[in-house]
Amino acid sequence: MGRIEDRLEELGFPLPEVVPPVAAYIPAVITGNLVYTAGQLPMVQGKLAEIGKVPTHVSPERAKELAQIAALNALAAVKYAIGDLDRVTRVVKVTGFIASTADFTGLPVINNGASEFLGLVFGDAGVHARTTVGVASLPLDAPVEVELIVEFK
Amino acid sequence: MGRIEDRLEELGFPLPEVVPPVAAYIPAVITGNLVYTAGQLPMVQGKLAEIGKVPTHVSPERAKELAQIAALNALAAVKYAIGDLDRVTRVVKVTGFIASTADFTGLPVINNGASEFLGLVFGDAGVHARTTVGVASLPLDAPVEVELIVEFK
Amino acid sequence: MGRIEDRLEELGFPLPEVVPPVAAYIPAVITGNLVYTAGQLPMVQGKLAEIGKVPTHVSPERAKELAQIAALNALAAVKYAIGDLDRVTRVVKVTGFIASTADFTGLPVINNGASEFLGLVFGDAGVHARTTVGVASLPLDAPVEVELIVEFK
Repeated sequence: MGRIEDRLEELGFPLPEVVPPVAAYIPAVITGNLVYTAGQLPMVQGKLAEIGKVPTHVSPERAKELAQIAALNALAAVKYAIGDLDRVTRVVKVTGFIASTADFTGLPVINNGASEFLGLVFGDAGVHARTTVGVASLPLDAPVEVELIVEFK
Repeated sequence: MGRIEDRLEELGFPLPEVVPPVAAYIPAVITGNLVYTAGQLPMVQGKLAEIGKVPTHVSPERAKELAQIAALNALAAVKYAIGDLDRVTRVVKVTGFIASTADFTGLPVINNGASEFLGLVFGDAGVHARTTVGVASLPLDAPVEVELIVEFK
Repeated sequence: MGRIEDRLEELGFPLPEVVPPVAAYIPAVITGNLVYTAGQLPMVQGKLAEIGKVPTHVSPERAKELAQIAALNALAAVKYAIGDLDRVTRVVKVTGFIASTADFTGLPVINNGASEFLGLVFGDAGVHARTTVGVASLPLDAPVEVELIVEFK
């Protein structure tokens, strides 16, 4: 097990198995020295940890945890593509979609669940550009979906 | 006509002319060995094949067909950029936006209209990472919008 | 000051300071010869120029101006990453998210505020691929959010 997987263990979030795509695609694709992950849902052992919209069904606090879980699944997808998370040289971009009501605008805090986690895991290499958007609906009624673009060597 | 365009004919979906952008941009841009397409709508001969939200105005089954049409238009945009679809070495990423009500969560099946089609056309090179999102509204009241990142040689 | 910053002055839109991220990330990241910006809001001197949805709270005409402001902030983010906007060789991709009601579909005109502006600033190098999406909600109740992928030398 590599340095980054050790770090995940240490943080209390051992790397899960990659989540099988819910449809006709794969978890991540390499082009050049970039990995593009599929949008990742907050799956835990094959099931969504929560369903519904923020904040009606899922509190912002819980949604932030879910963004972290989705980011952890995105790391499993990165490992699927490049074999070893120690090869990651930079998290380039994080996009977080949050299933929210139109009047909920506290979206950045939720996506911080992903951003802060990636900073803890990768240090300076985990600091990224980011887009956060509140959307009408996500696959399987997931409250959050996170995708990554990661640079590796 | 190249191998991939022959394959499209064979599948019953001859490559259409590229759809003129509905505003101040172009259908696709090359950087390095990647093509980024603009978001593509399900246009057929210059008109949207359907308008409205899923599932209120457009059934999920029909929306899946529309995602395929949008993906076909995205291939026309790729050809616009690189001249010949036989140069495609990998479909890297598919992002599908679906104009849907907040309570509709059967989004992945719709985006499979794009994913399965790209698999049929390109075989292994068509297998991609993917993000699917349900959104409030799309340009011109389109039910779906699909964008691609494609690697070429 | 470089040629592009001169051009911005001339157009009446001097380059602002980069907008500090509203959360745990940075304004832009370089990978290879690409810059990925974070999603940019229509901030003016540290405050959102408008809040609310289009067209309920913010007219489409005003939202188009906001898209231009967000694009200008995105250029400040690009400068943050590469130091000098004269190094930009191509605006590759513009993605514009617009906080809109489900029945508002005049989205492309709004995103033209970003697209036309980038064309004025960079000429041929400013012509890009683009995706426009209407979403339920944006950070801090912003009406628009614009992100760029830019190629540089």
